[in-house]
Amino acid sequence: MIFSSKLIEDAVQAFSKLPGIGKKTALRMVLHLLKQEKDQVADFTRAIAHMRQDILFCEQCHNVSDAEVCAICANPGRIRTQICVVENLRDVIAIESTQQYNGLYHVLGGILSPLDGIGPDQIQISSLRDRVKLQGVEEIIMALSPTIEGDTTAYYIARQVADLPVKLTTIARGIAFGGELEYADEMTLARSIAKRLPIDNYVNVGGGSR
Amino acid sequence: MIFSSKLIEDAVQAFSKLPGIGKKTALRMVLHLLKQEKDQVADFTRAIAHMRQDILFCEQCHNVSDAEVCAICANPGRIRTQICVVENLRDVIAIESTQQYNGLYHVLGGILSPLDGIGPDQIQISSLRDRVKLQGVEEIIMALSPTIEGDTTAYYIARQVADLPVKLTTIARGIAFGGELEYADEMTLARSIAKRLPIDNYVNVGGGSR
Repeated sequence: MIFSSKLIEDAVQAFSKLPGIGKKTALRMVLHLLKQEKDQVADFTRAIAHMRQDILFCEQCHNVSDAEVCAICANPGRIRTQICVVENLRDVIAIESTQQYNGLYHVLGGILSPLDGIGPDQIQISSLRDRVKLQGVEEIIMALSPTIEGDTTAYYIARQVADLPVKLTTIARGIAFGGELEYADEMTLARSIAKRLPIDNYVNVGGGSR
Repeated sequence: MIFSSKLIEDAVQAFSKLPGIGKKTALRMVLHLLKQEKDQVADFTRAIAHMRQDILFCEQCHNVSDAEVCAICANPGRIRTQICVVENLRDVIAIESTQQYNGLYHVLGGILSPLDGIGPDQIQISSLRDRVKLQGVEEIIMALSPTIEGDTTAYYIARQVADLPVKLTTIARGIAFGGELEYADEMTLARSIAKRLPIDNYVNVGGGSR
């Protein structure tokens, strides 16, 4: 693409560095912003600049946070004896959006992956042990991806806290609601048969709402 | 989606106002930027803020411009007696990227569309007449969309400059290179037969490069 304006070219370049955004889409965004009022575009860039500049990591759960302690850890209404272990912020948002969990989180910031050079010291595992030990945590809920790396990480954490009086659980795997059995992969189907639940449990999922 | 951070929420909101960007894609962009260095994100937002804040419209062709006169109009190497009339910046970029046109442009900033309230005074038609009259323009090349609005606009412009000694042309319509005849719409095919060219012309298109 040949631009006759350096300003436009730089803005298109900037957008096209975002994931999944090519030159054409970047140009579409730039043309969109050109049609907006200057103030609106200033609001747009300010929100993003502000976010990256001022974001902190919660000193307790390591989630991204607006303050030294994040809104979840600082909320006195949350159950402080449950910690849900997740890989990243995206997982926290996904679980929070269900409005079914009222404990705390622990954001690892990655999962063990020796091939990518991510070992136990690159992610927040030792600080999880400290929390469990010092804060009287009763249950650790593993909410990690059902991959080899996720399972390895869960297993490693389990070993790290083996000497502490904490219950370990994992989120249920199975056929998704509305999912057709025939389209489920063999692993999931096999696991969901092996870990079958009494009907009572099943109908009470989601507060008995379905 | 429930975010535990206002900073993240605001940034996701900002991105999701862009065309074609939903909440999930916006979150993906925010997470991407969170992984970047602060300086890189500052460069990103600065390029966009700078673009919207400092962009001007060329006082001659009305294209977006970094200065009062755009780089194309200011270039002494361009043929000043040819003006290509386009709807917007996107068309200028498309034509410039072919590197086959060396004249000037006139950016209308829209096309006539009475239903959308766009009449001759909302777009840059009278200034086109002024340019033709004052600057000794010899040829106006219409490069407008092959729609009713585009044709109407071209026709309106033709009438506005009917009393001036200027040649009017339009970009060729026809079957695209590499396009299969059977998939062409009837209008295009009909027009490309009616406006057929001698073989000599055909093989010389694009500087004889094909």
